[in-house]
Amino acid sequence: MSAPVVNPVPVGVLVLRGERVESRHRVSYAVADATGALRHAEGESERPIFPRSAVKPLQALVLLESGAAGRFGVSQPELALACASHGGEPGHVDLVRRWLARLGLDQTALECGTHPPSHAPSAERLLAAGQTADPAHNNCSGKHAAMLTVARHIGAPLAGYIAADHPVQRLVAATLAEMAGLAAMPEPATDGCGIPTYPLTLAQLATAMARLADRRALSPARRAAGLEICRAMTAHPKLVAGSGRACTAIMTAAPDVVVKTGAEGVYAAALPKLGLGLALKVEDGAGRAAPVALVALLEALGALPKMASAALGETARPILRNHAGKVVGRIEPAPGWPRFWPEI
Amino acid sequence: MSAPVVNPVPVGVLVLRGERVESRHRVSYAVADATGALRHAEGESERPIFPRSAVKPLQALVLLESGAAGRFGVSQPELALACASHGGEPGHVDLVRRWLARLGLDQTALECGTHPPSHAPSAERLLAAGQTADPAHNNCSGKHAAMLTVARHIGAPLAGYIAADHPVQRLVAATLAEMAGLAAMPEPATDGCGIPTYPLTLAQLATAMARLADRRALSPARRAAGLEICRAMTAHPKLVAGSGRACTAIMTAAPDVVVKTGAEGVYAAALPKLGLGLALKVEDGAGRAAPVALVALLEALGALPKMASAALGETARPILRNHAGKVVGRIEPAPGWPRFWPEI
Repeated sequence: MSAPVVNPVPVGVLVLRGERVESRHRVSYAVADATGALRHAEGESERPIFPRSAVKPLQALVLLESGAAGRFGVSQPELALACASHGGEPGHVDLVRRWLARLGLDQTALECGTHPPSHAPSAERLLAAGQTADPAHNNCSGKHAAMLTVARHIGAPLAGYIAADHPVQRLVAATLAEMAGLAAMPEPATDGCGIPTYPLTLAQLATAMARLADRRALSPARRAAGLEICRAMTAHPKLVAGSGRACTAIMTAAPDVVVKTGAEGVYAAALPKLGLGLALKVEDGAGRAAPVALVALLEALGALPKMASAALGETARPILRNHAGKVVGRIEPAPGWPRFWPEI
Repeated sequence: MSAPVVNPVPVGVLVLRGERVESRHRVSYAVADATGALRHAEGESERPIFPRSAVKPLQALVLLESGAAGRFGVSQPELALACASHGGEPGHVDLVRRWLARLGLDQTALECGTHPPSHAPSAERLLAAGQTADPAHNNCSGKHAAMLTVARHIGAPLAGYIAADHPVQRLVAATLAEMAGLAAMPEPATDGCGIPTYPLTLAQLATAMARLADRRALSPARRAAGLEICRAMTAHPKLVAGSGRACTAIMTAAPDVVVKTGAEGVYAAALPKLGLGLALKVEDGAGRAAPVALVALLEALGALPKMASAALGETARPILRNHAGKVVGRIEPAPGWPRFWPEI
């Protein structure tokens, strides 16, 4: 029997009940520039993780670079939705349905599977109206509409567009590998929405995001695509996530940073003003800790305007209330975290 | 600035996507006998945690020892429900309503607050019927009915029975302290249902559970109460939690162990055949990891019959499926965990 794994991943986020720590979240992160040089890192920045939905802004490059977006008249809101893990609110779902209709398709073409809107009031309204969710409500439906658009554009079969050996996924994998500085992608696992999810280290993911932020070394076509993606996400933060969501709150408060959450405690960010990319992973996968860690890192990097920090309120430091509405605790960065060393 | 906290809490549970580890949960535990001697422990067995609902079987001692249960004819199913974090299924809610009615009360006397049934189909049926949840649907409503029963019995005010200085909560705190081997309880925080939650170390919680399992040193009244609680929980495992829940599955598969979950990744168990108590805490509070860790510990202790381990299936090792129903991963104990040393 091998010994249990005990890695030196520091505690980044605390959950307090009263004034006592109830639970702790360990966080690894990497901050890199577009050359791949690490500026800051703690924990396991060189261990592969699954970036999950945090790579949606990178996956969307294919929609633009392939020419599919131009040919099918993809709008800026639709581009934001292609990068989204949306809440399944009516505004998200209607936009996806109209996009699909323009391709002559409907939600039955989406292979992402079905789950109720993550936006609880939207899920409740659906149930109360006697309706059920369909694949357009899936948080990834915008990305899937984008992938169908690419498939249609390159003349590939629409059915099976989620398979790792489908031409669309091969294009996406090649683009991710180039952005992350890899010759080829490792074997993927399957994401929640059925497409391949490729393991990347936090350092590689941060590098890819830095190249989205600092596009000078990219090809002209990719440079233009990266700019359009950053513009679409920051112009339409409600489409990238939705009501009450951290991505939306952060990009609303700080319109010059591009942030994207991924399942199992992942966050990625492109910081155009600093020319840096950032990637973090909560070791235990907790979604509640990831935005708290992200905001603490953005503050430590000086990437947030002072007003933004104040405006973020409970996104940065959630207050915990019990079922009777009484404040019982809070979530906050651990004292002394992140621990940046002076730059060399 | 102090250095980030990095404690040697071993990884107990792994979340795999494909064959690669995606997330990891660290777990501390203590196994003690009724004298308070530690038999096994890893991680932070001496650090105070909030046991949350894992102490419900201990809190219920007061219902019996005070004479309240006898006077108000509390049935064995009601006693099981007093120890429950139930799913808010119709069977749970109806039983609570009938119990309250016997006291001349209804759900408005409950101060636990309201949340939708945690049993998703019950929550959906409620919404589809145009109804809303009330305090009887709260997972703690059985415990609160028990506390109202005690308040009525001792002639204390019913309103405010959740306050730390209310006679009922003082009785509960004194009983918990005695069971855990403490002279007095430390300052409490507030639980999800509004009552005080007192910090205990895992060693103290395991000791208290061992005294529920091995009752020889208890007073006659408490000995009888402890036996009734163990019998009620193991006779009615569906009332202690509900459909699809780990407590119910484990006590159904192994009817001679008493297990109780608590919020934020806590589990407590009383093992009458071994005369031992067990307490565990998932460092990050993840509910998905706690039953996996519990079953691994029960197996390592030889507390589960061989058939029970097989019958537990996805309670012991959950299979992860994506929104289209495809198997994408699993949750399982970390190799080599728990790491019991030979007994001295």
